[in-house]
Amino acid sequence: MTRTRSTFQSPITETFGWLDGVEHPADRPMILVSQAAPVAPPPPALREALAELVLTNDTAHFYGPVLGLPALRAELARNATLHYGGTVEAENVCITSGCNQAFAAALAALTDQGDEVILPTPWYFNHKMWLDMTGVTAVPLPVGGDMLPDPDAAAGLITPRTRAIVLVTPNNPTGAEYPPALMGAFRDLARARGLKLIVDETYRDFHSRPGAPHDLFADAGWDDTLVHLYSFSKAFRLTGHRVGALIAAPALLQEVEKFLDTVTICASQVGQHAALWGLQNLGDWLAGERDEILARRAAIADGFPVLADRGWALKGLGAYFAYVQHPLDEPSDRLARRLVREASLLALPATMFTPAGDAEGARHLRIAFANLDRPGIATLFDRLAAVTP
Amino acid sequence: MTRTRSTFQSPITETFGWLDGVEHPADRPMILVSQAAPVAPPPPALREALAELVLTNDTAHFYGPVLGLPALRAELARNATLHYGGTVEAENVCITSGCNQAFAAALAALTDQGDEVILPTPWYFNHKMWLDMTGVTAVPLPVGGDMLPDPDAAAGLITPRTRAIVLVTPNNPTGAEYPPALMGAFRDLARARGLKLIVDETYRDFHSRPGAPHDLFADAGWDDTLVHLYSFSKAFRLTGHRVGALIAAPALLQEVEKFLDTVTICASQVGQHAALWGLQNLGDWLAGERDEILARRAAIADGFPVLADRGWALKGLGAYFAYVQHPLDEPSDRLARRLVREASLLALPATMFTPAGDAEGARHLRIAFANLDRPGIATLFDRLAAVTP
Repeated sequence: MTRTRSTFQSPITETFGWLDGVEHPADRPMILVSQAAPVAPPPPALREALAELVLTNDTAHFYGPVLGLPALRAELARNATLHYGGTVEAENVCITSGCNQAFAAALAALTDQGDEVILPTPWYFNHKMWLDMTGVTAVPLPVGGDMLPDPDAAAGLITPRTRAIVLVTPNNPTGAEYPPALMGAFRDLARARGLKLIVDETYRDFHSRPGAPHDLFADAGWDDTLVHLYSFSKAFRLTGHRVGALIAAPALLQEVEKFLDTVTICASQVGQHAALWGLQNLGDWLAGERDEILARRAAIADGFPVLADRGWALKGLGAYFAYVQHPLDEPSDRLARRLVREASLLALPATMFTPAGDAEGARHLRIAFANLDRPGIATLFDRLAAVTP
Repeated sequence: MTRTRSTFQSPITETFGWLDGVEHPADRPMILVSQAAPVAPPPPALREALAELVLTNDTAHFYGPVLGLPALRAELARNATLHYGGTVEAENVCITSGCNQAFAAALAALTDQGDEVILPTPWYFNHKMWLDMTGVTAVPLPVGGDMLPDPDAAAGLITPRTRAIVLVTPNNPTGAEYPPALMGAFRDLARARGLKLIVDETYRDFHSRPGAPHDLFADAGWDDTLVHLYSFSKAFRLTGHRVGALIAAPALLQEVEKFLDTVTICASQVGQHAALWGLQNLGDWLAGERDEILARRAAIADGFPVLADRGWALKGLGAYFAYVQHPLDEPSDRLARRLVREASLLALPATMFTPAGDAEGARHLRIAFANLDRPGIATLFDRLAAVTP
């Protein structure tokens, strides 16, 4: 056995393999709703700033501090303080090579072989993969019909080996936005039991409610319990630059630093400058992006009756994702492959987000709709309807 | 215990901390020979190509394939085939976020908790840190007085848990260039015992011998044993872009892909394009860089008598590094801190490259001289001489 053999192939890689050799009719071009990635580049002004940077700023080509560009750490601290209320200092912030790395670094600092971490299911597959590879047991906490995890159920899963509870909100894959009171209840549980609460808010900027999505940072001494993960990839369309962040206690960041130093030394300096420029200049632009995503979310809700009439159910909706239950007597992984061939449509089966053999996984699909406009969503639904006559 | 608590703080981070609050006389500016990093930016033509890229190439801002940009994989395969002889195909190459990540990914694909890996000592500290964090025992193989590891001694260290032998050539920290016959002997040993031979050639481009540094790739079926690591950071001055590579069997890269996907998804697209442009356009420029490094290396050898007269010994010299034995009755970690205060000079003590309590570690310093020109090297030696009257 090796660490990588203890886990599965990346679902994104696997599903791209499903496309090989499949021909699509000219009037039915492929619709990709598999990956949560913007397909448009960042705005021109940001690109111009980066061009200037690579030409004129020598340090953009040099190693930077392991924990990140000081100006970016300070700017994200300011941003988080404004966004959430409460107080986040620059020394609470470190910059990572994407949000997956923030998760990996946090886990390296918090866990050892044989430890346990509680993950609501459906889970984000890269979280599960990292836990597998690092010898940590992912303890599933199935969400309820409202796609929300129950703190009392979580309490019943805690053992002496439990080190953390992980929440993703807005959720990947379900889109569910966890209410502030629920977040607080999980924080209280984690604190009472001496655990960390890891909150992945990659999709924070597309939350449907205005204002702070929770008040965890307003809690004095938040950093004894909270470990917050963020990504610049979606907000500023920087997926190819690999910039994320981890916000936590400075003492924990000293541990995180060992991991980051050994795995990448530092995040791309160009990417970090791009994120900094975005925070400083793209607030209004991002508000417009959020409006557009929310409009697409509304289009999903508005159009869903055509599928509901055929037995589909919209179980979760938010951020980039719709989480849908299909009515077929066919597991979602088989259905997803059939949709590639018969509907020229790639969506991920929920089997990729659930433990092996999970019945809920077999019944659901994740639709990453953020790149589809309203007509595109109508086309998507027509094709799904066609396979469920 | 957690994974990060099982290892030490990054030596680079630790030593930067030594500089805090230390004042230096105006006529004795600080000399940093601690980190192996170019302090000049990449050549202007490369910077112009990157500026054009970020302005005009949308895909430079998007996620790329986990294993790297296909054009870069193909170009490095061509480059390796030319450089080493033998055959390297694009499918043997994957691109990583720096060479440290290539090592981490290889180890994730090859080892599990409780396994063992043989590392010649002095070792590269980030290799040791990763093995600590991943629960793999680093089995020290002390080099001889010529700074070369002995395959027979390595054979005696192999147990049923051994998974790989790691060689770094030109070596960090000693600078030693391992002869081709020695590399071949290690390959034969690894193959005979069913192990992988991991060869880190980060400093390949500054090797003193013209032509191929070894013929491991010329061996038919090399990829049953050899795992090769490379960095674009030093060759093209791209440290801040985080681009490295791993060359191995395609089946191993399928495993590596799981790790890369989970830890960073992909390497910076801008960085990968920079590396590609470098491979395509900077061959002659790199030859000039190599000449300059070799001239500095010669300056170290030429100037060393001033230190030899005071009891210092030059134990290793190559690539970016001189490995020197000091004559003082003081462990190298204490000496190195004293050098900051008394000589305005930061070099790493060999205690950072050796197991705890290692007597050789206490007697040596690593001098990363690549950023010092001939007068700078003379100044460095004068300052070292002054502390050993």
